[in-house]
Amino acid sequence: MAQKPGIPKGTRDFSPVEMARRNYIFDTIKRNFRLFGYKQIETPSMENLSTLMGKYGEEGDKLLFKIQNSGDFLKSCDDQELLCRNLLRLTNKMCEKGLRYDLTVPFARYVVQHRNDLVLPFKRYQIQPVWRADRPQKGRYREFYQCDADIVGSDSLLNEVDLLLLTDKNFSDLGINVCIHVNNRKILTGIAEVIGEADRLIDITVAIDKIDKIGLDNVNVELREKGLGEGAVNALRPILELSGSNDEKLAVMSEILKDSETGMKGIEELREVIGAVGRLGIKSEIRLDISLARGLNYYTGTIIEVKARDVAIGSISGGGRYDNLTGVFGMPGLSGVGISYGADRIYDVMLQLDLFPEDLGQTVKVMFVNFGTREAEQSMLYIKALREHGVPAQLYPDNAKMKKQMSAADSDNVPYVAFVGESELGKDAIVLKDMKSGEQTVVSLADLIGRLSCPCAAE
Amino acid sequence: MAQKPGIPKGTRDFSPVEMARRNYIFDTIKRNFRLFGYKQIETPSMENLSTLMGKYGEEGDKLLFKIQNSGDFLKSCDDQELLCRNLLRLTNKMCEKGLRYDLTVPFARYVVQHRNDLVLPFKRYQIQPVWRADRPQKGRYREFYQCDADIVGSDSLLNEVDLLLLTDKNFSDLGINVCIHVNNRKILTGIAEVIGEADRLIDITVAIDKIDKIGLDNVNVELREKGLGEGAVNALRPILELSGSNDEKLAVMSEILKDSETGMKGIEELREVIGAVGRLGIKSEIRLDISLARGLNYYTGTIIEVKARDVAIGSISGGGRYDNLTGVFGMPGLSGVGISYGADRIYDVMLQLDLFPEDLGQTVKVMFVNFGTREAEQSMLYIKALREHGVPAQLYPDNAKMKKQMSAADSDNVPYVAFVGESELGKDAIVLKDMKSGEQTVVSLADLIGRLSCPCAAE
Repeated sequence: MAQKPGIPKGTRDFSPVEMARRNYIFDTIKRNFRLFGYKQIETPSMENLSTLMGKYGEEGDKLLFKIQNSGDFLKSCDDQELLCRNLLRLTNKMCEKGLRYDLTVPFARYVVQHRNDLVLPFKRYQIQPVWRADRPQKGRYREFYQCDADIVGSDSLLNEVDLLLLTDKNFSDLGINVCIHVNNRKILTGIAEVIGEADRLIDITVAIDKIDKIGLDNVNVELREKGLGEGAVNALRPILELSGSNDEKLAVMSEILKDSETGMKGIEELREVIGAVGRLGIKSEIRLDISLARGLNYYTGTIIEVKARDVAIGSISGGGRYDNLTGVFGMPGLSGVGISYGADRIYDVMLQLDLFPEDLGQTVKVMFVNFGTREAEQSMLYIKALREHGVPAQLYPDNAKMKKQMSAADSDNVPYVAFVGESELGKDAIVLKDMKSGEQTVVSLADLIGRLSCPCAAE
Repeated sequence: MAQKPGIPKGTRDFSPVEMARRNYIFDTIKRNFRLFGYKQIETPSMENLSTLMGKYGEEGDKLLFKIQNSGDFLKSCDDQELLCRNLLRLTNKMCEKGLRYDLTVPFARYVVQHRNDLVLPFKRYQIQPVWRADRPQKGRYREFYQCDADIVGSDSLLNEVDLLLLTDKNFSDLGINVCIHVNNRKILTGIAEVIGEADRLIDITVAIDKIDKIGLDNVNVELREKGLGEGAVNALRPILELSGSNDEKLAVMSEILKDSETGMKGIEELREVIGAVGRLGIKSEIRLDISLARGLNYYTGTIIEVKARDVAIGSISGGGRYDNLTGVFGMPGLSGVGISYGADRIYDVMLQLDLFPEDLGQTVKVMFVNFGTREAEQSMLYIKALREHGVPAQLYPDNAKMKKQMSAADSDNVPYVAFVGESELGKDAIVLKDMKSGEQTVVSLADLIGRLSCPCAAE
């Protein structure tokens, strides 16, 4: 009868302390999304498989979690069909729905489906879990949260500027020291053009994207394997080894790209974005990074990737501009730019660097010890008044031994414990213990409320 | 190529306005959960099917959404197995995971799995979506949110009192006028005993539970069909027709149940809970409702159900005490009491009664009109300063026609629009338009910040 309970691999339970930390991240990001005028939407966890399939490449299709239809699909399969054991075909019969894989495709679907209700440009944010049937490993989960902000329906570069300000504010508020890498897909296109391999753009960018991981030599090996001529590989080298300030890099690149109209457009765009952000002033470093391509082929302009400076953990946020997000759903020509924050990576960085505030583990500000029926009811009256003034407070529910009650307060990190014993009954007197200093004082209810409520918390 | 996009039936997209309303509900409930000392946990969307199956009855098992395994299960099926078309057996091979059906079973699993890390009593809250493969119909969805608060590891009736105060505060804060119906399973047991049908408790409570829907006569028909003697049916009648104040009902019931020890224990428990809540004082009516049984058979003590008074929509919240939540996972004897708030029902009530605050649709407090490159950059400086003071603000990203920009501000319900045109460049001057009154004034940045920031919003 009794089972030893567990959860599916790659998934997680979150304890109260973990939730407090996660909420700290979500609340910070959400507050800034709102501050910047992004509006929240939510989409269903399940999408039709027809919406999801083919959007993430062949590999992505395999990583979709598929949900079995409710009816008895076996009835509609003839013997032949079953015995063929064609997994794909049977899966199509058995499953019409899948769990969302990211927030981008559902957003594109949302925009097209609700196009008549939306005023463009539309700034949306979305914070929801996504699911991937990846092989579970350290730091990689099958269910994890994404926090996305996008603006669609405007090709103004001020949107890029706004997203960079947002990103700077998010990480400043979280206390994470970051470097924001930027690039522009048009520059990559320009490079492919000027080295004489314009039709090899995807091969080149996929290879370039790996430079941090596998190094220049291995990238060159890959480029040669893809069929790039030795001249092109050599022409690429100085570009990949570019160094100096952003202005210096832009100067060198505009010299190299001077014969590519597209490339020069990319330079101009980056110069405008980096310039505006610099004049407005941000705390994080913005670094032009020509090697930045971010695998995904749908970026068409600015590319953004954020790396934490004080810990080696890869990117903690990334995004860029795309010109045809909704085309696949029948609404072409809609330009947008967006950024995605990975809550789990950010969590790991903050934990490693000890950046979470100390009092996050607290549940209530004051716990009342339970001395029995009459004392408990008197305490409940005080607790009710405290809560009405916005002070989180609770009574230990059982008349247990003092030691047990105090140790519960300890393990909850409760800053104050209150005692209403027999001698306090019928008086406006509460014995208050500061759990940090150990100091005990007798206070009235009004005193207690004054001491524990902050003026902003009251309603 | 282009598909007409849609979403699976029974699921929903939530627009910014709907999200603002939903967040208003979630934020209110969450704030109160914290105020009362409940700690948040989250569990994975997917549980092992072995955790879920058999916990919700045969009907519930059918309503579980099952997720197909990643591997190729067809390889491990022989021809015979496939051709048998035994859906259950094949499903067991194809699916090991399912989407959670409620928050109670995952919570029980959580408590048992993490028993060594938990300090009891444990007050937890959980706000997450659940999924049911129900036939979609008006007001019933396949994905919907539950908001649960439970205390486990304490059998003190003060927990019931605390939950009733919490429920009163939640609905008071939301502005919903409710009646909180209470009963006690021990009273129902006592009734079955004194009418001489002690072994028919489940039949009786299931029938009683329907009295509001089908009326006394039909309930009696059902009871007779279930095999209850005429004497028992008649003995039950005065109990079902009980009226008067809670005290009057308790007096009558304690007379009827005087020979049932269990029944009298139920009376005593209810008297204590109702008495304490009355002395502490709440806004909602608490009503002893002997017909309240709440279908589920796992309640063992107090039963709670909340109904909105001003709209006929059924229950919007319910819960009670259970004594063996975790037994099925090998941890017997853990008592708990909890309550669940249905966000969608509450949403429908608030929408029907027009209870949502008016300014929920607002995105930012001020939108700056875009007059071109230089004006836009000057505006961005102001916007950055406003945001640093906690004022949500944005720039219209494109230098579009004034009419288009103003209509965007209108459709976003933006209360103020700011103009920084050529004549304001290089001066500390912003033309501010109050969108409600139409009034226009020239203000400095400091003025603007002072006017739009509330002292509590600044960090």
